[in-house]
Amino acid sequence: MQALYVENGELSYRSDLPMPAAGPNEALVKVLIAGICSTDLEIIKGYAGVQGILGHEFVGLVEAASDEAWVGKRVVGTINIGCRECAICLGQGPEHCPQRTVLGIINRPGVFADYVALPLANLIAVPDDVPDERAVFTEPLAAALRIREQLPVRPTARVAIVGPGRLGLLIGQVLALAGGDVTMLGRSTHSLALPQRLGLKTGMVDRGDDNSFDMVVEATGNEAGLAHALRLVRPLGVLVMKSTYAGAATVNLTKLVVGEITVVGSRCGPFEPALRLLSRGQIEVGTLIEGEYSLAEGLAAFAHAAQSGTRKVLLRPSGI
Amino acid sequence: MQALYVENGELSYRSDLPMPAAGPNEALVKVLIAGICSTDLEIIKGYAGVQGILGHEFVGLVEAASDEAWVGKRVVGTINIGCRECAICLGQGPEHCPQRTVLGIINRPGVFADYVALPLANLIAVPDDVPDERAVFTEPLAAALRIREQLPVRPTARVAIVGPGRLGLLIGQVLALAGGDVTMLGRSTHSLALPQRLGLKTGMVDRGDDNSFDMVVEATGNEAGLAHALRLVRPLGVLVMKSTYAGAATVNLTKLVVGEITVVGSRCGPFEPALRLLSRGQIEVGTLIEGEYSLAEGLAAFAHAAQSGTRKVLLRPSGI
Repeated sequence: MQALYVENGELSYRSDLPMPAAGPNEALVKVLIAGICSTDLEIIKGYAGVQGILGHEFVGLVEAASDEAWVGKRVVGTINIGCRECAICLGQGPEHCPQRTVLGIINRPGVFADYVALPLANLIAVPDDVPDERAVFTEPLAAALRIREQLPVRPTARVAIVGPGRLGLLIGQVLALAGGDVTMLGRSTHSLALPQRLGLKTGMVDRGDDNSFDMVVEATGNEAGLAHALRLVRPLGVLVMKSTYAGAATVNLTKLVVGEITVVGSRCGPFEPALRLLSRGQIEVGTLIEGEYSLAEGLAAFAHAAQSGTRKVLLRPSGI
Repeated sequence: MQALYVENGELSYRSDLPMPAAGPNEALVKVLIAGICSTDLEIIKGYAGVQGILGHEFVGLVEAASDEAWVGKRVVGTINIGCRECAICLGQGPEHCPQRTVLGIINRPGVFADYVALPLANLIAVPDDVPDERAVFTEPLAAALRIREQLPVRPTARVAIVGPGRLGLLIGQVLALAGGDVTMLGRSTHSLALPQRLGLKTGMVDRGDDNSFDMVVEATGNEAGLAHALRLVRPLGVLVMKSTYAGAATVNLTKLVVGEITVVGSRCGPFEPALRLLSRGQIEVGTLIEGEYSLAEGLAAFAHAAQSGTRKVLLRPSGI
């Protein structure tokens, strides 16, 4: 089958790969659409030494499964697969299992392929009223919702999202559903046009006043964005780190300690609420799509996604 | 009067300074004993551009006050003086008032002097059963207690304190009062002798397993200590930043985000509970004292305090 394969930080298109074998309690899923996220872009720069088939955002069709009831279902899939035996798996789920594999990231072939195998426990059926082009946003929307699982978001809180990119725009919409005054902060007026169309307040990040937000979400994944986020959050405020960082960065620890800031790392979130919001049309995702490519055009798709300011680039394995 | 004075990061002993003038609703306090803390050591290295009389840990005697009832009382004093008008002062106190002065740190002469002036609102009377040598620990003990104001500390939590120094040993004792399994981690067996005498569990910091503590308190104030703390805390765990850092440091953001760590900056705490614990004898401070000096010997006192592994060095303005 076809797939996008990463090896030693080098991405390649391959058409010679074997079909994945679905193990017991797993499904073989035909990938309908997959999405490129910033973590994928970090991986092809060498992040975490990932090897194999890339990709973790997808919507697909179950072609075979140990439980026949799944066959023919349109599904999305959570990305962490734990050992199901340790205290972490049994207590809170697979997301932090030390033995976990992670779809397209840690020791498990990803979804930039014709087919993928996933445990049935990871699958969630997609409601009929959520078309493929919206369902493919379930995973990043769930990641945005993770913030609301971790922290209360008061409707009167002054909230800023630094980075109006593919993930930032989902976070902004999710947090605005709390009823609050949410501001998307970017580095160029160009980057703020889409958040404005989505009805979000916007501002230039370098013009935001120090200590002026109760909660700031860092969604750029770069050191300059983090420095702004820490500068903007008020004493006793909360800074949410929502982007995958490859490695270390310099942080102003004086502000963090003297201002008694709380910093919260935030990663994978709940799929069911994401599908509910997509089903109800309460999160706009259509305008985030900037391009669709086949797997054979995968390298061009990645080049497009890596351009500054690009939002979501989708891959349709079998072409458009 | 005499005082230890810092100017352009240079500490000097001066005996030519005028007595402080106590304003309305202030007291003139004769300093009985003062303590040197790590923040003072950072300040004389240039931290925060502090100028003036240094020092913020003290116990003293009220010599004059607008309210006569205070005269003759033995007191300790909180260190933040807010504007008393802004939403922060009115809502949560002076600690984060943007206009605040801070005793011996920001725009307010400190306690390494014969006398200090402080608002009556900052004074707390010391119970008769707490001698001067214990009362002088009220401020750092309050800072240790701040952690318990910010976060729940479960008695079953695995808690580590990185840095068995003057502040770390107070933190360790405070957190152990929750009934938990508290480990003091240091870089040398020598540094672990005192925590062992205090009945705390100890370990070498570089031998602690990754992800092995639910809560880690960083109390070294250096980048290596912070790196260990982040390494030791488990996914979904809490890292408390308890030391003043001068400036920026490099932080492993991959662990912070992927492990969904919560980092909490922590500074000044409540004095009344600190005095209660000292009065009840539930916190041992006597063995933390490593030297006492007069103000005239102040430079020698600072040289002693700055030696690696030194715990508390006290100053008695009028000599011992």
